[in-house]
This record gives sequence, C-alpha cells and structure tokens, in this order.
Amino acid sequence: MTRRPIGIVVNGATGRMGYRQHLVRSLLAIRAEGGVPAADGSRIWPEPVLVGRDRDRLARIAAAHGIGDYTTDLDAALSRPDVRVYFDAQVTREREKAVRRAIEAGRHVYTEKPLADTASTALDLYHAATAAGVRHGVVQDKLFLPGLRKLRRLVDSGFFGRILSIRGEFGYWVFEGDWQDAQRPSWNYRSADGGGITLDMFPHWHYLLEGLFGHIVAVTTHVSTHIASRVDERGERYEATADDACYAIFELAGGAVAQINSSWAVRVRRDELLELQVDGTEGSAVAGLRNCHLQHRAATPKAVWDPDVPDPLDYRSHWQPVPDNESYDNGFKAQWQAFLRHVVDGEDFPWDFLAAARGVQLAELGLRSAAEGRRVDVPELAG
Amino acid sequence: MTRRPIGIVVNGATGRMGYRQHLVRSLLAIRAEGGVPAADGSRIWPEPVLVGRDRDRLARIAAAHGIGDYTTDLDAALSRPDVRVYFDAQVTREREKAVRRAIEAGRHVYTEKPLADTASTALDLYHAATAAGVRHGVVQDKLFLPGLRKLRRLVDSGFFGRILSIRGEFGYWVFEGDWQDAQRPSWNYRSADGGGITLDMFPHWHYLLEGLFGHIVAVTTHVSTHIASRVDERGERYEATADDACYAIFELAGGAVAQINSSWAVRVRRDELLELQVDGTEGSAVAGLRNCHLQHRAATPKAVWDPDVPDPLDYRSHWQPVPDNESYDNGFKAQWQAFLRHVVDGEDFPWDFLAAARGVQLAELGLRSAAEGRRVDVPELAG
Amino acid sequence: MTRRPIGIVVNGATGRMGYRQHLVRSLLAIRAEGGVPAADGSRIWPEPVLVGRDRDRLARIAAAHGIGDYTTDLDAALSRPDVRVYFDAQVTREREKAVRRAIEAGRHVYTEKPLADTASTALDLYHAATAAGVRHGVVQDKLFLPGLRKLRRLVDSGFFGRILSIRGEFGYWVFEGDWQDAQRPSWNYRSADGGGITLDMFPHWHYLLEGLFGHIVAVTTHVSTHIASRVDERGERYEATADDACYAIFELAGGAVAQINSSWAVRVRRDELLELQVDGTEGSAVAGLRNCHLQHRAATPKAVWDPDVPDPLDYRSHWQPVPDNESYDNGFKAQWQAFLRHVVDGEDFPWDFLAAARGVQLAELGLRSAAEGRRVDVPELAG
Amino acid sequence: MTRRPIGIVVNGATGRMGYRQHLVRSLLAIRAEGGVPAADGSRIWPEPVLVGRDRDRLARIAAAHGIGDYTTDLDAALSRPDVRVYFDAQVTREREKAVRRAIEAGRHVYTEKPLADTASTALDLYHAATAAGVRHGVVQDKLFLPGLRKLRRLVDSGFFGRILSIRGEFGYWVFEGDWQDAQRPSWNYRSADGGGITLDMFPHWHYLLEGLFGHIVAVTTHVSTHIASRVDERGERYEATADDACYAIFELAGGAVAQINSSWAVRVRRDELLELQVDGTEGSAVAGLRNCHLQHRAATPKAVWDPDVPDPLDYRSHWQPVPDNESYDNGFKAQWQAFLRHVVDGEDFPWDFLAAARGVQLAELGLRSAAEGRRVDVPELAG
Repeated sequence: MTRRPIGIVVNGATGRMGYRQHLVRSLLAIRAEGGVPAADGSRIWPEPVLVGRDRDRLARIAAAHGIGDYTTDLDAALSRPDVRVYFDAQVTREREKAVRRAIEAGRHVYTEKPLADTASTALDLYHAATAAGVRHGVVQDKLFLPGLRKLRRLVDSGFFGRILSIRGEFGYWVFEGDWQDAQRPSWNYRSADGGGITLDMFPHWHYLLEGLFGHIVAVTTHVSTHIASRVDERGERYEATADDACYAIFELAGGAVAQINSSWAVRVRRDELLELQVDGTEGSAVAGLRNCHLQHRAATPKAVWDPDVPDPLDYRSHWQPVPDNESYDNGFKAQWQAFLRHVVDGEDFPWDFLAAARGVQLAELGLRSAAEGRRVDVPELAG
Repeated sequence: MTRRPIGIVVNGATGRMGYRQHLVRSLLAIRAEGGVPAADGSRIWPEPVLVGRDRDRLARIAAAHGIGDYTTDLDAALSRPDVRVYFDAQVTREREKAVRRAIEAGRHVYTEKPLADTASTALDLYHAATAAGVRHGVVQDKLFLPGLRKLRRLVDSGFFGRILSIRGEFGYWVFEGDWQDAQRPSWNYRSADGGGITLDMFPHWHYLLEGLFGHIVAVTTHVSTHIASRVDERGERYEATADDACYAIFELAGGAVAQINSSWAVRVRRDELLELQVDGTEGSAVAGLRNCHLQHRAATPKAVWDPDVPDPLDYRSHWQPVPDNESYDNGFKAQWQAFLRHVVDGEDFPWDFLAAARGVQLAELGLRSAAEGRRVDVPELAG
Repeated sequence: MTRRPIGIVVNGATGRMGYRQHLVRSLLAIRAEGGVPAADGSRIWPEPVLVGRDRDRLARIAAAHGIGDYTTDLDAALSRPDVRVYFDAQVTREREKAVRRAIEAGRHVYTEKPLADTASTALDLYHAATAAGVRHGVVQDKLFLPGLRKLRRLVDSGFFGRILSIRGEFGYWVFEGDWQDAQRPSWNYRSADGGGITLDMFPHWHYLLEGLFGHIVAVTTHVSTHIASRVDERGERYEATADDACYAIFELAGGAVAQINSSWAVRVRRDELLELQVDGTEGSAVAGLRNCHLQHRAATPKAVWDPDVPDPLDYRSHWQPVPDNESYDNGFKAQWQAFLRHVVDGEDFPWDFLAAARGVQLAELGLRSAAEGRRVDVPELAG
Repeated sequence: MTRRPIGIVVNGATGRMGYRQHLVRSLLAIRAEGGVPAADGSRIWPEPVLVGRDRDRLARIAAAHGIGDYTTDLDAALSRPDVRVYFDAQVTREREKAVRRAIEAGRHVYTEKPLADTASTALDLYHAATAAGVRHGVVQDKLFLPGLRKLRRLVDSGFFGRILSIRGEFGYWVFEGDWQDAQRPSWNYRSADGGGITLDMFPHWHYLLEGLFGHIVAVTTHVSTHIASRVDERGERYEATADDACYAIFELAGGAVAQINSSWAVRVRRDELLELQVDGTEGSAVAGLRNCHLQHRAATPKAVWDPDVPDPLDYRSHWQPVPDNESYDNGFKAQWQAFLRHVVDGEDFPWDFLAAARGVQLAELGLRSAAEGRRVDVPELAG
C-alpha cells in the first residue's frame, strides 16, 4: 500500500482540544491505523506541523509523539509546499485572522467551532474560501456520537414514516459556585464575553436538525437567566448577564416541529444529558448521546386518559433498544477522515463554512425572537 | 352530631359523569361518611334532588339509591325552599341557560367544566353570579390527584426555594382509526365541533399553573395538526381540522417559565401520561398523576458535558419518591367537600367562575399566539 | 332497543363442546350482553332450541338455563317457523345427514369442524347449501385467539413489508399411555378411525395461512408414526397406524413459504404450544395463542457467524411484546356474533362450507404428497 | 518424553484461516502444550514448513514465530524427506491441483473445506488418495463446538432412547446492504460465483447428522431467494441469483427425520444462531453452538391443548442445562490432534475425503430436490 503524505498545520496543538482530540486521538490515531484509504487504493498519511506560541511546549509534544515539524511562525508553516491543510484549534477570537491567512496561502481549512462570533463574519470567511477555491470545514462532532448515529440510521431506513415532531431536552444543573464549584467557566454567564446558552447550543441544534430532519424555516424562543448571581473561579460573586436557559420551537420545512429546551438550571431526570424524542407516523425513537430506543406503531400501547384510576400500562417497558450493529469510532477522528477524503478525493463533506455560518445565524435569530417576542423566519443564507 | 341538610339540584344525573362521579362517588359517598364537618361542629348533609329529561331513568336511579326527590321540572326544583345549591353536569351547550336560571333563583352554583365555550360568556356568568351574591365554582379535579397533591405539598413546604421553571409533557398516541380504533371521539379533531387539544387542555394548564405557581402573564404557542386524516367511529375517513398538538411557553409572574407540550400524536416514554418537572434553586421535582419524585440540591449530582465518553452517572437513580403520607380521596368528592364548606361556612374556594373564565381565556389567547406568530400578554380578567 | 329473536336449533347440546363453548359461553353469553347489534339498531336475540338423544339431559340443561324449548325430534325442530338457524355439534360421522336435512328445511347452517371427513363430501354440502340459498359456516375459532389477532393486526398494518416466510411449530408430547395416561384419545392414532395429525391440523393451517397470508398453491410433506405402539383408554396396547407427526412446506401465492411442523411426539421448548414466526422485509413477529412479539428491521441486531467465540448478542431480548390494546372476547362467541350478523344483515363471513372443504382438501393433498414423495399442487376448489 | 517430529507443509499460511486458526491456534499451540501424545508414549511434534506465494510475508510470519522453514516452491517442500503431511488452506479453486501433487508425492493430506466444488471431483480425490495409500481428512470443526459436543455426549450415553426426530433452525438476518452494510460478501448471493445457502450449509448438516445420528437416506427441499435485490461492497445494487433460504427434510436410516431450515432472511428469536432439537423416546435436548438443554421423559410436563384459556405451563422452565463437565478446546486444534494421531497411530478419523465428498453430494441432491419438486434418494457414495 502506497502512503500519500499530506502536510497539516495544527495551530493550537498545545490546547486541550487541539492536543488531545485532534492531534492524539485523531491525526496520530489515523497513522496508527495505517492512514485513511483513498479512492486510488493509496493511504492518506497525515504529517502534522505543529504551530503555537510556546516553543518549549511544542518541542515537548513533538518529541513525545515523534513529530519532526513544529514552529511558532504560522506564515512559514503555511508556505511549505508539503502543507495542504490548515487546522485551527485556537481560541475563537484569534481564529478569523489565521483562517484568512491560510486561505490566502491557498490551503484547505478545517477549524474547531464556532467558526466566528457572528454569522456575517462566518459568511465572509465562507466567501473568501470559496473564492480562493480551497476546501473548508468545521468540527461538528456530535453527529458522530453513537446515539445520534443510531437515530440517523432510523431516519435513513424510513423507520419513522412521516416525521411529525422532535422534542429535545438538553441540560443539567451548573452549580452556582458558592458551596460547590461550578462545572462551567464564568464567562459562559456573561454576555459581554460571548456567553449564553443560546449562542453555545444553537449551532449544535442547527446541524443536528438540518442533518437529520431538514431545513429550519422559523424559530420562536424564550430565554431566561434563571440564576442571576454566581460565584466565579476566584471565589468572587458576579452578576450573570447571559441567558442560562432557552426554550425554543423550531419549525422545519415540511411541517415538522422541533421543541428543544436548553438549560444550565435544570436537574436531570433523563437517561442522558441530551435526549431527542422523534415521533413519526410509523414509529418513534428517543436518542441520547450513547443509546437510542424505539417504538414502532405496531408496538404502541393504547393509552387511555382516565386519571382517577392508576394507569395499568408501564410505558417505558414498551421501548426497545436500537442495537449497535457497528462499532462507533471517536467522532473527531471520524470527521477528520471524512475531511481528508474530501480534500484528496473530493468526497462529499456537508459541514463546511456555510453550514457553520448558518449555525451562528440560528443563534442570532433565536436571541432576536426572544427579544422581540415573536416568531422569526430563518432565511436561507446565500451560498 | 347534628346533621345540617342542604338541598342540591343535580341536573344531568343520568349522564356518566353526573351519575358516577358526582352523585354516587361524591354526594352519596359523603353521606356514607356521615356528611361534611361544618365549622360549628354540625355535619353538612347533601340532599340531592335529581333533575333530568327522562323520568323513568331518574326514577330508577332514585330508587336504586334511596333518593326521594326527582323531577323533570328544573324551575320547580330550583324554587324549593330546601334547595340551596344547583349543580350542572349537562352537555356544555345547555349549561349557560340553566346556570342563569339558578342564579336568578338565588341558588349557589357548581358546575362541570367547561363553564362555557368562550371566555366572554364565562365572564358574563361570573358577573351575574357575583351581582346576585351567590357562590359559584367549577370542577377542577386534576388538582386533587395524588401526584399533583404531593407536588402541592412540596410547593407549600418551600422545598423548591425560588421556582425557576416548569416543564410539562402531556399526551399519548391517539390511533388514527384505520387499523386500530381511535381512543378519542372524532369531534375532538374537528374545529367546527369545538375540537382541538388547546381548547381541551389549556383550562387544565391554567388552574394547575395558577393553583401551584402563580399568575400567567404571557403565552407563546405553536400548534400543529400532525395527523391530518383520520377514520371516525363509523369507519369513514375525515379531515382533521383542529390542532392535535400544542407547544407552549407560559411566562409566570415573578419570572418563572412553564414550557408545556400537549399532544395526541406523541408516543409515551415517560412514567405517566402527564408529567410536570419543577426546578427551583433549592430542589426539583417531577410529578405525574399518581407519583412524584424529588431531588434536593444537596443530592444533585455534578453532571459534566463530555460526550465522547459514556456518562458515569445514572441520573434517574438520583431521584427519590415523595411518600404518600396520607390517603388520597377521590378528587371529585374532595372538591365537593370544599365547595359545601364554602357555601356553609364561607371557606376559601379559589375555583370559581372567574377562574373558569380565565381558563377559557388562556385557550383563546394560546390559539391567537399561534395564529399571529407572537407572544401574547394575558391580561387579568376584571373581577 | 328492539329485540329481534332468532330461533337456533342446537344439535349436540349435551356434548362438552356444544354445551360449554356454544350454548353457555356463546349463545347465552350473547343474551347476557343484550344480544348482537344489528344494522337497523335492533338487537339479534338467540332463542336456542336444544336437540339431542337423551331427553333427561336436555331437560336438565334447559331448566338450569331457563331455556323453554328442547326436543329429541330434529325434524320437528327444523320445521318450526321461528327457527332460522341449524347448529351442529354432533360427532363428525352424524354430521352430513343432519346438515342435509337442515338445508332441505331451508335453514341456515353453522357447524363445528370438520364439516366432513373428505373434501368431496364437504364440497357436496357446499353445493347443496348454495343451491338452497341458505347461509353456511364452520367454526374456525383459532383465528380469534389473542395471539393470532395481534398477528393479524400486524399483517393489516403493513408492519412486515413483503412477507417472506412463516415458520410454524405445533405440538407436544402425548404420553404413550403406559406409565402415564395419554392426553389424547386412542382413535387419534388409528387410520381406520379417521385419526392422524395431518387430518387433524391441516384444516387449521389452511384457514390460518389463507386468512392471514394468502392462497396456498402447493404442499410438500413428510409424515411419520414416531410412536408405533401405544396403550389405550382401557389399558390395552395397540398399534398406532396413523401419522403422529407431519413436516410440511406450504408454498403461498406470491412466493412466500410456510414451513410448519405438527407433532404429538415433540417436547416443548417454546413459549406456547403453537408458535408462528413470520419474517418480512420490514419486520418479523412470533405469535402464539396468547402473545405476540415483534422485531422491526430497525431494531434487528447484526448477527455475525463466528462460532469459535461466544455470541455477544442476547437475541431474545431484542423482541418486544405487541400490546393488547383491546380486550379479547371468547373466540367461539365472537364467531357466533359474526355468523348471526351474516344471517341477519348479510355481513361478510368468509368461513363458509367452501372454506371448510378447502381445509379438508389440504389435508388430503398433504397425505398424498407424503405417500408419493413429491410436491403436490393445490388446485382452487370450484365454488 | 520423546519428541517425534513430523514435517507438515502448511500451504496458505498467509491467509486468515491458515495463519490464525491452523498455524497459530492449532500447530503452534500444540507445540506449546508439549505435542500430541502418541500410542508409544512419545509426543508428536509438528514441524511446519510454510508455503505461499509472497516470500516476504512468509519470512515475517516465520520470524515472528521462530519457524525455520518456508518456501514458495511447493514441489520442493513436498519432496523433503521429513515432510509427511500436506495441509491446504488455499482458496478452493487452487485446492484440487495442489492436493493431487501431494498425493502423488505420497504425503498424507488434510485440507480446509470444501474439498472441491463438486461431488465428483471430491470423489476423484478420495480415490486418488486411497489408491496412493495416503491418509486424508477435511476440516469439520463444528462437531467440536461445546454445544454439539454436549449433544454428542447425550447421544453416546443413550439418553434419548430411540431418536425420533431432529429439528434444526439456522440463520439470521443478513442486511440488504442499503442502509446498513451486509455482514456477508455479495458473492454468497450469486449462483455464478458458487453462492447459495444450500451449498454453504449442507456439507455442515451432512457431517453433523451423519456424525451424530446416522446415514441420510433421502432429502426433500424447497429453496427460496427471499431478498432478490441487494447492495454490494461497493454500494452498487445487484440481483441475488442464489438461494438465501433452504427448507429441508432429511430422512435418516432407521426412520428418524431431520427437518432443518437454513436462512439468511430470518430474524433470530432463539438463544443461538444454530439450534438443533432432538426428540427421543426417553428424552429430548436442544443444542446450540455453546449450550445444550435437556428434558427427560420423566420431567416432561403434560401439555393439554385448550387454547381458550391461558396455558398454565411455563414450558421453557422445564428444561435443564447440560453441564460443561469438561473444558472445550478450540475445535480446529482438537481436529488437528485427531488427524495427527490418525497419521501416526492409525487412530480412527471419520472426517476423510469420502465424508467430504458426501457433504458436497448432499448439497447437489438438495438443490436437485428443490428443482424437481420431489424427494431425492441419497445413494451411498462408493468408497
């Protein structure tokens, strides 16, 4: 088998996500498996070029993993003839500038989410990449989680018949920080710092809903700041200015409805932190991150509303687990494999900058709906 | 113990609800228990006067239960000096006229729900009753179900701290009627016949939310007709014109939010057909019709969002059942006892005609919100 | 409600089946429920006229159940103007003659199975009944058992997609009679007495397969007499000359296959004495007499044939019970209700003499296939 | 202990089966255990000589396992004086030629199954080996699986009394390849490529039935291609031309019957992918690949056919597991040990070329039975 080396600048390799999920568990794991099979029978072989600001940390990582190339000079890395891909795992505010330089250098670009803080910036980057003819993608790893892949399999198989509605519950209790430390950073709760659960989660809802069920045509939301006073990492009390819960109704093309609650102020009486219930004419399913259960219409018990007597039906027993039937790889690695085949063989890769821009757009429109107390149409972003 | 007899006209005693729930399981059951204790130590003793249109059936019921009085002449019954209360369990369209006659006759009035088809008629009846100085009430039995009474106990005890949010899921799959008979009548699905889940359920949500958590100040909804074609009782296909699902966000005075989905097109992966989750700063609870489970903040597990590894927490195991600690009487009977104490002793009885009018109003405004695509304020109905 | 009395001669009312299943649990039970609703709103009201050979036993039964009419004179009973239906629960060899007399008297005829010992006799009776213009039916109660009705519901709902195959296992161990009494009569094991499991069970397989899955076009069988020596009711050893097991392959119109084993020499490692597994492109089900379990293709685990390691899948856990969703009435009574509506209102009744003749025909052809060692076509019996 | 070295040409050592099952888990594992005990107290010591077409891969395997001898020249290997056994794990179409060369070189021959594509070729090889006076055997590992060895133990112990019948169910759902990948290769479904479940499974049924229960004297089958359109490894739709299900009745010498269904279009409601139920006069057993359960006639519940009431018996609870009572070695290794004792000490080895030819013959006759719609005798292949 022929190896086909492909140079990849990994910018932000010293951060937690960049190092663990992207370098170790994705790119190096791909090499351990012998590369990614290309259409011509050869194996795509990632050759990481680590980029960062701390030369010593880069050197240590390079040495630990037997990587020859690292540098603190992004432009030098981008100009190497063997480099074809730029990957960005920096903090969001550094991303736009670096991505633009990569595009100008003619490199394909893959980045962590969010692509940008606003839909208009994200759309700008999309136009720049398209104009330059480079390929582009954004991490959307949730689609690759086992529970959601099983749900996807059900959708693809036609199990649901016509899909009528989706119910989503996401969230958990984030401690206030006084008597137990909060398990999220305090900037999440400050508007000025880009916090808020709507901005955080709507890009996920966007690609999950669009990837599984079709276009979102309108959104109606109510947002709250349920816990208005919190204690930060240094033990100091601060005012929470961003939304910590969002109650949303998404209308999908074709008439289906997705009602999704996102909250950092809810206690979990569910099997998983995220659960999506999908109801269709032929059957229903409830998917979490790991598991998925289904109920076909032929197995649907006939519930009768008779509240004065105890209900004889045990509703939860009428659901059946969807079997694994395949092994589920790390989602980050799976998306890397898809992006590399997209770069080398032109295989389909739907999670591009335009999709990312639409995710940010949805968050913006969701906040506008809450502010204006009305249903807001979601226009198709021009490609 | 002194018995204090109180004449009660029971109009509609030959119908299923009037006969079984109100006459047998409430009024006669109260007599079997020795009446309702009054403030002065005596026992309020219901003396039913059955009213209906079918003399034979009235006679049979009266004979079977040893009731001396029955008549087909409503006015005669209302004019008897020993009659103090008029109760109405007729079909809705006959209700307004009979209630007005009872008010004019100076009788206290208690009726099945809904008081009327529109909020304005209901409000008219409220004004008439108030002007006449009679007492008035409407059946709202769900408040007396065991699960909701346990929830009430938690609210009253201050268990929740400040209540932040309520999530409600109500519904089940109503069969389409083709290969399995539907378990609801076809008129429920026709707008022209007063069908629709919003009109059916919002009066319940009104008294539950107001009774447990406070005033509703605004409502935002989306309604759907998920199943547009059904088969009726005679096996004939018909078009469903009324809403069979309503996705609603209620804003409560004080800032709490109640997000409640009502649907006849959802498969049940819950413990009960109705579940309300209440989250507060100090604790949370999930109540159904029968059971209620709680989680105090001190017992709240610290969930961490790390979707790439299986979640080590078994969330459902961290909830604890609220014990019965009392026996739960039939809800209809319990509300009758309260109404009789209200009539005799002036005890507080919040489920009056004004409350009933507000329930109908909420349904009307909910449908308006969906039609206009906007949040609708819920004005306080003038008392 | 108007009662519409209908006189029914019950011939064989002193036998176990005639008395218990047909008189008490069907005809008298129908009266206890107020009769059978007819199309015009009236209620069909069975008026049994008991016929038998033992006057004293008839008198005792009539007295015990408040039935006025009984006689030992069949012709007299058949000539009564109020009698419209003749029912036969005699032993098989007496049936043909009595049925012919009822047909000649112009009465509608309903009988226990088998209609006759041979297909040609059964067909003769069919032609006689048709020529006389009377309605006719034969008991086929298994179709009304809960497990098979649930299976029917799945078929009707389209659950299976295209049905590929049916596997049937019927049977149990009939003791040889030496050290434990046999639980079947000895004539079942003697050819000369009309014994044999093929003759006994193929009429059932006929109406089950044709009623659920479509026409049988060919049959291939192998029959055995596994236990050749048995001990009869008097403790005497006898030679078993009839088949006690039949291994059969039925080919259905459209290409599906039904492979059904029937045996009185098999020990039961099943949930029920009869189990039918149905496999279709969209899903599968296994139905017994009472219960039915299904597996949709979306819930089908991916089995891998790797016999050197223990199989990680627990296959039985991947099946889900089909919920009752209705109450299942006694099958005999249900078929009586259908026959009475057939007589009074002309409602469809597929279990007529022609269907019965085809069931006997299938048994005859099954035995021929075994004798000749070849697949035998099943011609459509001329109606 | 004296080692008695025996040179074994392993042809096909670089393939998955040849390398893993035969070289590593059988021959090298036998050496790790100190060899196979011979009759004279010495230990038979396999000395593999690897043969293949890829010198590098042979060299790597030899080095990894400390094997000194490997070559790409089959004739040179066969002519070595220390080589006594030729083993063939090549693809089927290369087998005949190599086996003939080994026979001509006077070597004993052991091969993977199938020995040949047709019974006549297999029989030719049998005659050639016999004429040359070499010993010969074919892998039939299923006989050594734990469940079937427990069944064998029951047969040998006389547990069953006279064996009356065998029921076999083999199979599982092979996905069509569209929305879930198929778990079998597409050539299995194409006649022209030697596919079809009858050709695949009948050699197994042959040695299982003959090894456990006696000679097969006749076969009657019906074959189907239930799923006529599938999607192959490259995602392209193709027509399935080979049978994917075979419904078979085998008649055994002495009168017992074996009814066995084999299918790749059946969903599994069994404990194991293969289950054989054996019924005898004294007892019954159900064996899978791993487990075996029995029911003695003294523990047989008396089932009564009374379908109108729920059956009071829990039939599955009346079966008892057959205990392991020994440890079950890898089946491949166990058969190697037997073959080596056959070569060295002349111990009985029933799985020879004639047995293999009869297995292929049975598949051919099974397909003929289906094609001609008749029972086909299975003549004894001349030895």
